[in-house]
Amino acid sequence: MSTLEAWKNMREVCIVGIGMHKFGRWPDKSPGDLVREAALAAFEDAGCTFKDIEVGFSGRVQSVTGTGQYVFGELGQSGILIDNVEKACASASTAIRVATWVVGAGLYDVALCTGVEKMQRGLLGAPMSEASASYSQLMGLGIMPGEYAMRARRHMSEYGSTREMYAQVAVKSHKNGALNPYAQYQTPVTLEEVLNARMIADPLTLYQCSPSSDGAAATVICAREVAHRFRGKPITIAGWGSGTPSYSPVGIGGDVAEGFIAKVSKEAYERAGVGPEDVNVCQVHDAFSAGEVFAVEELGFCPTGEGGQFIWEGRADIGGDKPVNTDGGLESRGHPMGATGIAQAIEIVHQLRGDAGPRQVPGNPTVGLQHNVGVGGCNILIYKK
Amino acid sequence: MSTLEAWKNMREVCIVGIGMHKFGRWPDKSPGDLVREAALAAFEDAGCTFKDIEVGFSGRVQSVTGTGQYVFGELGQSGILIDNVEKACASASTAIRVATWVVGAGLYDVALCTGVEKMQRGLLGAPMSEASASYSQLMGLGIMPGEYAMRARRHMSEYGSTREMYAQVAVKSHKNGALNPYAQYQTPVTLEEVLNARMIADPLTLYQCSPSSDGAAATVICAREVAHRFRGKPITIAGWGSGTPSYSPVGIGGDVAEGFIAKVSKEAYERAGVGPEDVNVCQVHDAFSAGEVFAVEELGFCPTGEGGQFIWEGRADIGGDKPVNTDGGLESRGHPMGATGIAQAIEIVHQLRGDAGPRQVPGNPTVGLQHNVGVGGCNILIYKK
Repeated sequence: MSTLEAWKNMREVCIVGIGMHKFGRWPDKSPGDLVREAALAAFEDAGCTFKDIEVGFSGRVQSVTGTGQYVFGELGQSGILIDNVEKACASASTAIRVATWVVGAGLYDVALCTGVEKMQRGLLGAPMSEASASYSQLMGLGIMPGEYAMRARRHMSEYGSTREMYAQVAVKSHKNGALNPYAQYQTPVTLEEVLNARMIADPLTLYQCSPSSDGAAATVICAREVAHRFRGKPITIAGWGSGTPSYSPVGIGGDVAEGFIAKVSKEAYERAGVGPEDVNVCQVHDAFSAGEVFAVEELGFCPTGEGGQFIWEGRADIGGDKPVNTDGGLESRGHPMGATGIAQAIEIVHQLRGDAGPRQVPGNPTVGLQHNVGVGGCNILIYKK
Repeated sequence: MSTLEAWKNMREVCIVGIGMHKFGRWPDKSPGDLVREAALAAFEDAGCTFKDIEVGFSGRVQSVTGTGQYVFGELGQSGILIDNVEKACASASTAIRVATWVVGAGLYDVALCTGVEKMQRGLLGAPMSEASASYSQLMGLGIMPGEYAMRARRHMSEYGSTREMYAQVAVKSHKNGALNPYAQYQTPVTLEEVLNARMIADPLTLYQCSPSSDGAAATVICAREVAHRFRGKPITIAGWGSGTPSYSPVGIGGDVAEGFIAKVSKEAYERAGVGPEDVNVCQVHDAFSAGEVFAVEELGFCPTGEGGQFIWEGRADIGGDKPVNTDGGLESRGHPMGATGIAQAIEIVHQLRGDAGPRQVPGNPTVGLQHNVGVGGCNILIYKK
């Protein structure tokens, strides 16, 4: 039996509850405080309590040991299995993926996934991982804005994309984020403001970089066959793909390795039985605006080299044919590393339920795709109504 | 379908390769150096290369992000999925359990699990987790030796166990460790030496406390149906249990919560279809000697209150009827936190294969049990020849 057949033989798994703590700066709150608010919101959404939860997966990056045990302890004392998973900025979507595995296999019926981070300031200029600290940093690489900027520059040279196109990603993100009460930044910016902002790594200015953020997100996941226990419409986790890009002594390439998103998305599309043409709404990992350009190409929404034009023409707008980062994305919603992957999933659930309010994608979207990446690798998850 | 039926419907999963880096102090080596040696030894043992590995799980506690990606990158650049898992001192057995899930579900055929740690000195006197830092420490609790010592004292009061019985655990551990070339400490100690050593937390003296250690361990895990690709006799992962003990503001209770090992082992016994009477060899989490006394009781090897006597009478010796910690355990083999759970599994594989040399348990052992615990919870894994 192939791995694809094995996946198709597993139980259908779905999301039945979602909750967030607003992203931003929360100096007076502990990670436990942030997760508690997100998880209780997810329970309220699902119409359940912690007693309904059979297993838990906790995502966090800058962690002391036992984060999951601590934050779940704040919710209740039930003795369930709680594992911490870490995949850098893709930690929270890893929690969803592992929960999907165990619920799909029938080992548990109901899981809680949480993601949380309280980020130190200035982190994105610091070595992100043991690998970059060991090699890349020594060679002046391994710093995130620089890696994105280098690929962006090459893209400009090879395909004629422009700094205005990258800047337009940030304009769109902040426009969408202004409609999201959980976003860290809720103020629109103009193209001129983005272009004239402080340069971080040419061609990427301040508004094109995700901020340091605090925040938490939580989701209740269950087998489709027990979803009737919960209120609301279940959203199915239809497919997943995951991998870790080639490690290289010059730049770990975790976020920006060329062709890698395409490779992983192929896995996810196959498992979900859909193609790029079927995706109605998409959340991508725009840690830096250029990342969205690379993603829309590699996910198959447009030909290679045309990602900048795709954004520029408004095709990724909420009213476009392939809306991307409808919640403001990492740049405007914020990017508390260990929580981002669940925040992305939550936005897709809102869109597929049709309750995204002023951010709602028109036309009854039925398929959503999430792209969450970090130096730990890339997770792609596909959801169906 | 119950979770037990679901487990029984999954594919049989087994260990086909094992490798370690000697535990000890390795100031000149990086975690990548340590894992590379352990993993290459596991490949040699299995008769395979990194190209045969389809998915990886990396355990580590005191981690920067991306440990798994980094250490796997040292082995080869293949783009496979690599997840980091963290469950405090039970991190490495968590890697084995998660690998067992995905291989058992048919999603992958061959996995590599690694565990590594380079520990700072004096760690065990420091706050171990966010929970203990937040609550227990403020109340003077949450420090590991103290928590074990308190339960040991209560056990002495309730059941009449003696300080000599606890000390005998350390005598046995160091006797076994002296037979293990991968052990951090390979020198036997006498009962008098243990009793007269520096007091750490009454009644536990220095020799009854696991050391701070550096080290790595690795194991190749595959579906039984593809085990023919590898050389050597596969050892089946027959059952598992896992949970997180009740969180309490006075002592997180992760290691020493009473009744918790019994609860989790019941799950593991059920999944494996065996009982305590069937276990021929056992590795328990003797972070402190008293832990072995609690474990042999809760695992069902002897009645409650008689664990000290059980050890004292030599029943847990290599020649006894229920050999425990044949490799020296945490106290003598060492306890690099993120690696311990795989080191325990490796010793069981040696014993069930019958190649444990001078440590070999006589009488052709066929069932082994591993008990690995931390503030993150408890994993129990049962192996069959």
